[in-house]
Amino acid sequence: MTTRQDCLALDASDPLADLREQFVLPAGKIYLDGNSLGVLPRATAGRVAQVVQKEWGEDLIESWNSAGWISLPQRIGDKIARLVGADTGELVVADSTSVNLFKALSAALAIAKADAPGRQVVLSERGNFPTDLYIADGLATQHGCELVLTDSPDEIGGHLASGRVAVMMLTQVDYQSGRLHDMAALTHTAHQQGALALWDLAHSAGALPVALKAAGADFAVGCGYKYLNGGPGAPAFVWVHPRYAERFRQPLSGWMGHAAPFEFTPAYRPAAGITRYLCGTPALLSMAALECGVDSVLAAEPLGGMAALRTKSLALTDLFIALVEQRCGGHGLSLITPREHTLRGSQVALARSEGAYAIVQALIARGVVGDFRAPEVLRFGFTPLYTRFVEVWDAVEHLRQVLTSSEWREARFHRKAAVT
Amino acid sequence: MTTRQDCLALDASDPLADLREQFVLPAGKIYLDGNSLGVLPRATAGRVAQVVQKEWGEDLIESWNSAGWISLPQRIGDKIARLVGADTGELVVADSTSVNLFKALSAALAIAKADAPGRQVVLSERGNFPTDLYIADGLATQHGCELVLTDSPDEIGGHLASGRVAVMMLTQVDYQSGRLHDMAALTHTAHQQGALALWDLAHSAGALPVALKAAGADFAVGCGYKYLNGGPGAPAFVWVHPRYAERFRQPLSGWMGHAAPFEFTPAYRPAAGITRYLCGTPALLSMAALECGVDSVLAAEPLGGMAALRTKSLALTDLFIALVEQRCGGHGLSLITPREHTLRGSQVALARSEGAYAIVQALIARGVVGDFRAPEVLRFGFTPLYTRFVEVWDAVEHLRQVLTSSEWREARFHRKAAVT
Repeated sequence: MTTRQDCLALDASDPLADLREQFVLPAGKIYLDGNSLGVLPRATAGRVAQVVQKEWGEDLIESWNSAGWISLPQRIGDKIARLVGADTGELVVADSTSVNLFKALSAALAIAKADAPGRQVVLSERGNFPTDLYIADGLATQHGCELVLTDSPDEIGGHLASGRVAVMMLTQVDYQSGRLHDMAALTHTAHQQGALALWDLAHSAGALPVALKAAGADFAVGCGYKYLNGGPGAPAFVWVHPRYAERFRQPLSGWMGHAAPFEFTPAYRPAAGITRYLCGTPALLSMAALECGVDSVLAAEPLGGMAALRTKSLALTDLFIALVEQRCGGHGLSLITPREHTLRGSQVALARSEGAYAIVQALIARGVVGDFRAPEVLRFGFTPLYTRFVEVWDAVEHLRQVLTSSEWREARFHRKAAVT
Repeated sequence: MTTRQDCLALDASDPLADLREQFVLPAGKIYLDGNSLGVLPRATAGRVAQVVQKEWGEDLIESWNSAGWISLPQRIGDKIARLVGADTGELVVADSTSVNLFKALSAALAIAKADAPGRQVVLSERGNFPTDLYIADGLATQHGCELVLTDSPDEIGGHLASGRVAVMMLTQVDYQSGRLHDMAALTHTAHQQGALALWDLAHSAGALPVALKAAGADFAVGCGYKYLNGGPGAPAFVWVHPRYAERFRQPLSGWMGHAAPFEFTPAYRPAAGITRYLCGTPALLSMAALECGVDSVLAAEPLGGMAALRTKSLALTDLFIALVEQRCGGHGLSLITPREHTLRGSQVALARSEGAYAIVQALIARGVVGDFRAPEVLRFGFTPLYTRFVEVWDAVEHLRQVLTSSEWREARFHRKAAVT
């Protein structure tokens, strides 16, 4: 049986422990929701204040040149590229994940239409994050395609074998169960069957090693405000393999994606490479905060980078699973996150026949912040940059107390908030 | 002849003079570029710091409920609605102007396709801001339409009379010349001819009274970082007349536009009204700054609001035009902004056969910040919230000295920056 002392010992010998010092962690809380919104890096407040007070307040439009505002989408993009296995100049920060998915899937469908006109299916999973499905549904209709959703990862191969799939669009780590897809294997299968592979990295960028180029992926998008610690609603990113980046004019053809935006010419001429995936003027304050967040992940590079973070992440989720099983048995919780390391992201999800929302609320009242996902799922994210092993112990102890005391049955924990 | 003393007297009797105290103005500069990037309101740094340090840093995901993050697009939208003649619940803040134009023009074209299938033209002006034309060009192609561009406002009526126009897409104030369209008259003509009217308010929201509902407009988009003082790359806004808001599922159908985003259902069900025009998670830091900027304009309401600001704006641009003519004659400058008040926005543009870029640079070196627009235009924006009459005098005096001394011919003023 693991003890709290064992967990303290794990922290004491954790080679990544000091990375936690980069963050302002909420006082009195155990924050296990970095997969929804990453915590605040210490550097961010000062950097944002600098952008507001100096770059905007004093230097105003001059900052487009002097502070390098104009190249921030590429500068931060190059940093994120290091985390997801892409090369310099291939990835830009822009807009939201939803908007970037629209661009990337539009391009993928246009390329499929040209190269494989008989293929009429966009393949995804019913459990994919809803915004991905909403965007895909609209684009599939527009392109005269059908959006086919699988109910289990096992079905993906069969659908690909049908020869009807134009684009396989998957989120690498399931937002609810935390299940991890094998990007290289699925991309390989998709290509063998003549389909393009588009990956959403919302729950993988900054959470585990991602190897877009090595896996042969075609398109990717990802989120800035989860494991990249970019702040609420941080800009997202989009990557297109160089073999496709210039083949298509993505439909959100705004001026920042023009070859020469400040020539103000009426005719659109797309910029070279991934820059054409920019659209309007970027939200600079949010962009500046994102860069601090990305830097907080890159700070792990001298310590082994994403591989080292992955090792700790798996140790944290292994520990959480083991402790829940050792200490919270008999309360109707079941593990829906895969036990196999190769199938697990950086979170653990537990299901229960009832009460998941109230249990999460009771935990939050005790300072243990996880989140609820419909219908009856408790979701806990473990961010190796700042989560300690002893926090895993303490979180499970609170969970045990909430369950054994039945305090979660109190009425106050059952009132649903607008955002759950 | 107007004297500097006259200008000081105008400032002394200006009923709006105190509004300037709301802003951090760059030391030693006369800032005449609020039509590119509005100045920093004093309230913004503190508000952004609060969002970063308290709402994000301490309260994290709880702030979606406790700090009202989830309803910011509507809350700020309702404030902007007061400035542009729309009603509560009709306008949301989201994404960039380019992205919002994509949504609005997509909807307009879908409605036109349903109601007037023979109409195949999107009508705009060759001098419209390029990003509008780039977006329209892509959408026109996608919808099998033709983008027709006029070279003069006088041609608009003739094109509308052709019976081929599906959507008339105009920017109310020309970004270069500062020419102001008669929104009510053009919208009326468009409707009489069976076309829809889409207005870009980038250079009019916060600059002059806009009356979307009274003018009968169908769609509008606008910019947050010019006269609304929302900060670099501030989120933009989109308005759709209630008669059309629910008729179409706009193509950027992300989860924030879903009827119940936190039910996480795989099927898209658009929210009621304008909320369906939201897409992904909003950039919260930039949104918070935008609200301070909008509030800085609303602060004029007790003093007469946009009508009072318009009176001062016209007095400022009248003064600038008069002083340039009195004091800078014989240097080859010509006025390209209309003299008639009904045809003028809140800026003045001057053309010259050569040297416009260098003259603007020489002025900037003297602390007078206007901007250059290709091919040979000097552009000066006058923001009645914070521009003083004596600054107009001093700016013209610097312009006179730059021209008479020929200092603009110095090589250092001819080196082009990335962003001009």
